[in-house]
Amino acid sequence: MSAADLAPLVTLALRCADAAGAVARKHYRTPVAVDVKADTSPVTIADREVESAIRAILTAERPQDGILGEEHGSRDLNAEYVWVIDPIDGTKSFITGRPLFTTLIALLHRGVPVLGIIDQPVIGDRWLGVAGQATTLNGNPIRTRLCPDPAMATQAATMPFPHPEFRQTEAASRYMVWGGDAYAFGLLAAGFIDLMVEAGLQPYDWAALVAVIEGAGGVITDWEGQPLRLGTNGNVVAAGDPSLHAKILQTIRPRL
Amino acid sequence: MSAADLAPLVTLALRCADAAGAVARKHYRTPVAVDVKADTSPVTIADREVESAIRAILTAERPQDGILGEEHGSRDLNAEYVWVIDPIDGTKSFITGRPLFTTLIALLHRGVPVLGIIDQPVIGDRWLGVAGQATTLNGNPIRTRLCPDPAMATQAATMPFPHPEFRQTEAASRYMVWGGDAYAFGLLAAGFIDLMVEAGLQPYDWAALVAVIEGAGGVITDWEGQPLRLGTNGNVVAAGDPSLHAKILQTIRPRL
Repeated sequence: MSAADLAPLVTLALRCADAAGAVARKHYRTPVAVDVKADTSPVTIADREVESAIRAILTAERPQDGILGEEHGSRDLNAEYVWVIDPIDGTKSFITGRPLFTTLIALLHRGVPVLGIIDQPVIGDRWLGVAGQATTLNGNPIRTRLCPDPAMATQAATMPFPHPEFRQTEAASRYMVWGGDAYAFGLLAAGFIDLMVEAGLQPYDWAALVAVIEGAGGVITDWEGQPLRLGTNGNVVAAGDPSLHAKILQTIRPRL
Repeated sequence: MSAADLAPLVTLALRCADAAGAVARKHYRTPVAVDVKADTSPVTIADREVESAIRAILTAERPQDGILGEEHGSRDLNAEYVWVIDPIDGTKSFITGRPLFTTLIALLHRGVPVLGIIDQPVIGDRWLGVAGQATTLNGNPIRTRLCPDPAMATQAATMPFPHPEFRQTEAASRYMVWGGDAYAFGLLAAGFIDLMVEAGLQPYDWAALVAVIEGAGGVITDWEGQPLRLGTNGNVVAAGDPSLHAKILQTIRPRL
């Protein structure tokens, strides 16, 4: 896809992020009822209203496209373009008043992520990744940092995953920063974190991360080194330095 | 101590927090050299410069008081008043560009915490706790929330502590939020988190939390239910609901 093809889609995605942020800010640090989903994860009216706001815009402007959202289901996943939405990534951060939750908006073209937004609407941190272009944070181009040595890496993780592959990378890293979600992947793209190893992510968790990280010089794949596509098991490894990514894969693949 | 006695000390502490924030913001999300201390924790020029800025004010205005700081040591710990300073609590958040680090400023009067500030200078979140007064967040009075049942509690933790007491509370809580530090204790005071169980905290980690949490209706003690004072082992349990605190103590004390 050319930059000219993508430009109107980027504009539309940014409009969706603006609408999402207005809804999320309205509910932030207010007492919200927390429901529990079938997978035991929490969900609030903010998750549902933010996704509805985004879907309303997309349905009006791009009725021919597919949509995969965390809260309101899927439609037309075989369309040429599919939007992937996580209205509130980091719902536990949201309900505890931590301004690290984000809205994630991604676009797949024939299954390949070509656009990703990570938006934190309280602080006003917005990452924009577009295939073939330099990723920006709040409009400024960003780059990942060099860190070829796992023993020098700062690793972030949303939680202590029980998988032996994760435990191994945790033990080998210099520093662990806990409580990650997509915001930490954004910080990896910006050169402040070197490594993330996460397990069981859903498409709406990872779809927006791909263009953001790749456009900043980083690498994000599954644990076998394969590109992230619908159907993946959601075990994800991301590194700012491609040589670090390759070393981590060598370490954890013998276990698979 | 009367409110009138404390008022000028509160003014002075807020002035220290303002000075600290200006220094911290200058270094935030810039490439800073990270040194490793004897306890393997990271330290940067920001930690050192922030503490120096605070000590310069206190030394000029209150030369008779003691000071205990994380980076530049202690003096006159037997003085009637002792200031306790953590220039950058959450240094790993600071060096990874997460706006959850805080500056902690506390005052002990004859060993008893009577004043605490938790200040996040990038977002602009400031908690102020003063003995006998309602705790405020950004000037607005806050209260902890009711949550008598451990199974309904949202627990935050800076990291997965290996202690069996911690593991037990983690397993019993409804939700875990990872990556805490003092910012999470502030959110507990504000009624968004119910429980924190942490191990091995230093005086500069916990001193500012006491007045903030107690002034919001919460309880913070060591794992044996004793008040936090210099000389504690730094194993801390804090709860927004006093009845939750009592239940957690009953659960973990048999192990001690």
